[in-house]
Amino acid sequence: MEAEKLNELLRQMTLEEKVDQLLQLAADFYSEKAEAKTGPMADLAISDTTVNQAGTTLGVSGAKEAIRVQTNYMKKNRLGIPTLLMADIIHGFRTIFPIPLALGSSWSLAAAERMASVSAKEAAVSGLHVTFSPMVDLVRDPRWGRVMESTGEDAFLNARFAEAFVKGYQGTDLANDFFRVAACVKHFAAYGAAIAGRDYNTVNMSERQLRDQYLPGYKAALEAGAKLVMTSFNTVDGIPATGNEWLSKQVLRNEFGFDGVVISDWGAVKEMIPHGVAANEKEAAQLAMNATVDIEMMTTCYSHYLAELIAEGKIKEAQLDEAVLRILTLKNELGLFEHPFRGANEELEAQHVLSKEHRQAAREVAQQSIVLLKNEQEVLPLKPELTIGIVGPAASSQDILGAWSWQGRQAEATSLTVGARHYSKQLHIAKEPCDYFQPSEVALEEATHIARSVDVVILALGEAEWMSGEAASRSDIRLPEGQLQLFDAIRSVAKKLVVTLYNGRPLDLEAIQAADAIVEAWFPGTEGGQALADILWGAVNPSARLSMSFPTTVGQVPIYYNVENTGRPYESNPDEKYVSKYLDTSNYARYPFGYGLSYGTVRYQKLQLSSTELSAGQSLRASIDVVNESTYERTETVQLYLRDVVAMVARPIKELKGFKQIQLQAHETKTVSFEVTEALLRYVHPNQQWGSDPGEFELWIGPNSATGVNTTFQLV
Amino acid sequence: MEAEKLNELLRQMTLEEKVDQLLQLAADFYSEKAEAKTGPMADLAISDTTVNQAGTTLGVSGAKEAIRVQTNYMKKNRLGIPTLLMADIIHGFRTIFPIPLALGSSWSLAAAERMASVSAKEAAVSGLHVTFSPMVDLVRDPRWGRVMESTGEDAFLNARFAEAFVKGYQGTDLANDFFRVAACVKHFAAYGAAIAGRDYNTVNMSERQLRDQYLPGYKAALEAGAKLVMTSFNTVDGIPATGNEWLSKQVLRNEFGFDGVVISDWGAVKEMIPHGVAANEKEAAQLAMNATVDIEMMTTCYSHYLAELIAEGKIKEAQLDEAVLRILTLKNELGLFEHPFRGANEELEAQHVLSKEHRQAAREVAQQSIVLLKNEQEVLPLKPELTIGIVGPAASSQDILGAWSWQGRQAEATSLTVGARHYSKQLHIAKEPCDYFQPSEVALEEATHIARSVDVVILALGEAEWMSGEAASRSDIRLPEGQLQLFDAIRSVAKKLVVTLYNGRPLDLEAIQAADAIVEAWFPGTEGGQALADILWGAVNPSARLSMSFPTTVGQVPIYYNVENTGRPYESNPDEKYVSKYLDTSNYARYPFGYGLSYGTVRYQKLQLSSTELSAGQSLRASIDVVNESTYERTETVQLYLRDVVAMVARPIKELKGFKQIQLQAHETKTVSFEVTEALLRYVHPNQQWGSDPGEFELWIGPNSATGVNTTFQLV
Repeated sequence: MEAEKLNELLRQMTLEEKVDQLLQLAADFYSEKAEAKTGPMADLAISDTTVNQAGTTLGVSGAKEAIRVQTNYMKKNRLGIPTLLMADIIHGFRTIFPIPLALGSSWSLAAAERMASVSAKEAAVSGLHVTFSPMVDLVRDPRWGRVMESTGEDAFLNARFAEAFVKGYQGTDLANDFFRVAACVKHFAAYGAAIAGRDYNTVNMSERQLRDQYLPGYKAALEAGAKLVMTSFNTVDGIPATGNEWLSKQVLRNEFGFDGVVISDWGAVKEMIPHGVAANEKEAAQLAMNATVDIEMMTTCYSHYLAELIAEGKIKEAQLDEAVLRILTLKNELGLFEHPFRGANEELEAQHVLSKEHRQAAREVAQQSIVLLKNEQEVLPLKPELTIGIVGPAASSQDILGAWSWQGRQAEATSLTVGARHYSKQLHIAKEPCDYFQPSEVALEEATHIARSVDVVILALGEAEWMSGEAASRSDIRLPEGQLQLFDAIRSVAKKLVVTLYNGRPLDLEAIQAADAIVEAWFPGTEGGQALADILWGAVNPSARLSMSFPTTVGQVPIYYNVENTGRPYESNPDEKYVSKYLDTSNYARYPFGYGLSYGTVRYQKLQLSSTELSAGQSLRASIDVVNESTYERTETVQLYLRDVVAMVARPIKELKGFKQIQLQAHETKTVSFEVTEALLRYVHPNQQWGSDPGEFELWIGPNSATGVNTTFQLV
Repeated sequence: MEAEKLNELLRQMTLEEKVDQLLQLAADFYSEKAEAKTGPMADLAISDTTVNQAGTTLGVSGAKEAIRVQTNYMKKNRLGIPTLLMADIIHGFRTIFPIPLALGSSWSLAAAERMASVSAKEAAVSGLHVTFSPMVDLVRDPRWGRVMESTGEDAFLNARFAEAFVKGYQGTDLANDFFRVAACVKHFAAYGAAIAGRDYNTVNMSERQLRDQYLPGYKAALEAGAKLVMTSFNTVDGIPATGNEWLSKQVLRNEFGFDGVVISDWGAVKEMIPHGVAANEKEAAQLAMNATVDIEMMTTCYSHYLAELIAEGKIKEAQLDEAVLRILTLKNELGLFEHPFRGANEELEAQHVLSKEHRQAAREVAQQSIVLLKNEQEVLPLKPELTIGIVGPAASSQDILGAWSWQGRQAEATSLTVGARHYSKQLHIAKEPCDYFQPSEVALEEATHIARSVDVVILALGEAEWMSGEAASRSDIRLPEGQLQLFDAIRSVAKKLVVTLYNGRPLDLEAIQAADAIVEAWFPGTEGGQALADILWGAVNPSARLSMSFPTTVGQVPIYYNVENTGRPYESNPDEKYVSKYLDTSNYARYPFGYGLSYGTVRYQKLQLSSTELSAGQSLRASIDVVNESTYERTETVQLYLRDVVAMVARPIKELKGFKQIQLQAHETKTVSFEVTEALLRYVHPNQQWGSDPGEFELWIGPNSATGVNTTFQLV
């Protein structure tokens, strides 16, 4: 439809139709069984008419159902406006990829884009139009269960991933490419900074900090073209994001120039009542409307009170019209007026969903996401001639998809033992079910028996799916006590011990440091067990690098590599009493940002700058030789860090400002270069504007945030 | 001296003399041995002349020495300007009182004032003029070692204590009352909010939060007349407090109207270099000067570069003059021009320092500060006829003064066992030294042997002094592992087990919950062991109430009672999944703010409001009956909490807004009233101004922050 005609359509809509266009209801309102039409509909106090005019729908699944819902909906819709079908497609639709925190660890934008494009295709042919992804919330506290849905602690890395996700979901021609879906970036803003790592908790930070560290991810997603923004549950300086005019109107609409659809998170409009900024639904509606929230998800403050607010002059009808027009525009950009079923196609669904190609993609992306944390005396990769035991609660587990895998099925996932069988005929696999919390005596006995009899034991530990994700914060981020006892028992009898981990957050791994090797597989998705086996037996050389720090103890959190220098910096003299430190542990993460091992070693040498001075409008080239010192092929992620030595505010001691993934053959050396421009040196000044300051900068190129070759240059 | 004449004096000063007036040097620069004159003087690159013109001195002690230093100083000072002697008198001079966090627990402003006035007298007769107290930093993270120096987590309570301290130190006639010293409120601002509880670490919060929660304590101290302000080590929104023009000029000088002396913390001017906001000492001097920092403590950026900065026009000489005048004014307000030795008097020193009266004051204040956390089946107070064992590392320890007790001597402190002998002839006291971290086998055996043989065991546990205070942050806030093992051993054999604790921070006490009674004695000072015995045997009914929450686990921190409501509040339904909570622990503190037991029970009943409506300019009276249901006399701290149900920003679910301590005889009932005014309902609005909003308020009166009788009223 021509954009012109949307205005015409808008003019034909009654006030009630316009108000209802702003409502999002869940799929069960539209199911054949219509379960929702009794209880929930009564709870929401809405009519049949409202249900059929509600502009968007959450969670319809399957091509057949999508077509049925749209057909019914259009039949009853006076103006023939199609509904828009949204869902949480976070790391795969039916073919589940590694969780986003694992994708972050891949440092592969191609992998992220591949995940998003496969997910989009499966979702689109299953009838969906919009996914509530990417989540680009910056995270610094592993207690928060939803770190699994973020790409990590770094603003620069998150921004690059945000772009890759959006590109993968949306492609370049959303109106005609029905294998794509629209992306909704979330959660605007700073949802990841919940105090004490407790989900939904208060967020508080200065505006400068918000702009400098937390907003760049969202902005990058928008610049990549994300069609929607979801508001966050939390307050931003006391005002819920869903009713925060400064945040939505001033920053998002005016400064970022975003004219797409803003949607509330689930129930977040009405939640302004418990937040204590609205006395009732009517006030909540007013706040959300003034904050240009276009779609109210799953509560009905708009439905009940917008007309009244307009009648009273508290909300202008023009505000409503703008919101409706943004929603109609999105529908039009997705081609829904011409093709209300869009990609929904049972034949294509059967062809693509969980296809062999998609499973292969999931396997390769999982390989790229698995982080080798420890590898003493090269116990890994496993030699084919060795006898191998696989024990522990996750040994044969298919609970490896992770939270937010709605359409994923554990039964379709490959366990580690299944994967291992491709590589070894000499496997001793525990048969007795082993609980994540309380391994039974029998399980313990079987596991230790196996451990005694083999050359290498793989002890598969971790979290169950429900232990991370939304509303899954943990105050204790160690492995469950029962697993630690199992570890001790196995360690005491095993010749060589490899621990593999499935989990959704950085863990305190101090208690398993006596392992010979530790492999962080996260929740790796449908092909996760296979990918893990690919890594363990060396079919693939692990290349992933952490995108979030692993603390030594929960007592260090929040912990992140890009801290600001203090006046009494630890780094300069950790043994001095009067420096910023703890009495009982170091300031450093057990495994820092950017860290991860591969098989074989690599050397960084011959760092060179094209100039020791940089002026605005020009660029400086920093080059380094990366030498593969081994016979293993490898993917190396070369990382560029900068530090602004003197600025108007205290700046991080190191900040990621570039990275490149290169392939190195055995004993190959490659020269890697980065262009450093003045724009890269900007930060948010006390006046809230981005700018750079002349003066000295330190530059590091290296394999992670804790090491690297360094030099300095001047911005003149 | 008439104020007029100070200007005259200023006019006579050379530029160099004026610059030197801003320098503070440590006592060793002036000692007879003059140790500092070689190494440190060379380190600071200052001349003899500068030493003798440095305006103020840190840490001279004793009347004789103070008189000698002043005599020598004045001899060499061209204009006869006396030096000003400052020191850290935090919770007592020689007679040590409980640490400030313990004083906070007393909820007794009279106790705080008494401590300050006794400290002032001892310090003043020993020749001191200024104390670097009170510290009123709001604290929410028990990992931070310096919580021991704060009165706790509540802005209202801290403000009241700030006033009491200032009143106690300064009295009402500082110029003539030579038993008083000037108070320096610190650390401006928000030093207590160090990220991850690590001393000196970055602080970040919104301006609104800073104003609403963190600034009121400082402001209250200034309104009570505190003569000096010390800047904090941390950054405030990226800019070190010591060079933060917004904070010092805009807020402190302009808004708060403070025209007294601002002093840097130790070395904090120069520390702006590692902070990364100054390239060198000269820039640091410029930043500090522009932030109206008058005295530079222990670094010499001003001495080296102020003259140059003035010559270059980067600093106006008028700025320097203002700083000098503020220092001269302070000296004059202390009467130093007429009485350069001021209170220094060896005879009075001998008479007052550690006098019997002062020890008695310390004992009584300690009694008021000891918190009874647990008392199952009324094991306490101890019955005189029972046999009692006293074991554990702190049993006979005199390490009970706590950090910041510079002039205090452990040898002068009464241990618990000494105190206990006043009450019992049937004591079995462990003789074998018992280490805080690794009790020896012999000590363990002796302790368990005693435990077996007595009716009640007192197990004295806790922290050594060095485990809290400045630069003493801990990532693990449990008792040391060795003490927990000792606890388990004793618990398994003891009939009744009372744990006493000396420590400087809220601890995770989960591992000792099997004790029959837990008594939190903090670091109680010189008479601490005696006061603890007074409580244990019931000579005094414990009345203290926590002013800082004790978490269940370090994984909950930061934890505080006055949290903002979320959109998915835990309190409304802790068992629901999608509320703000942890999977593995509750949101609540083990022991909340305001909590503490006394012997016997008390009941709150018949809450009445004089009106259910309040309008500006009027007040509303809330009254409650407090019923002593026991035969014990008691001091009850009646606490008033309010909640603004709907506001422009999310407000705390409860905020302390009043408290009264009353005495109740056996079975006595008293009616306690609070006046609630509109002013009490104000908070910082998004426009950074204090104001109230009409609407509903909840009101509680009760014995702590977690319970109470409640009702509501309307602000109209």
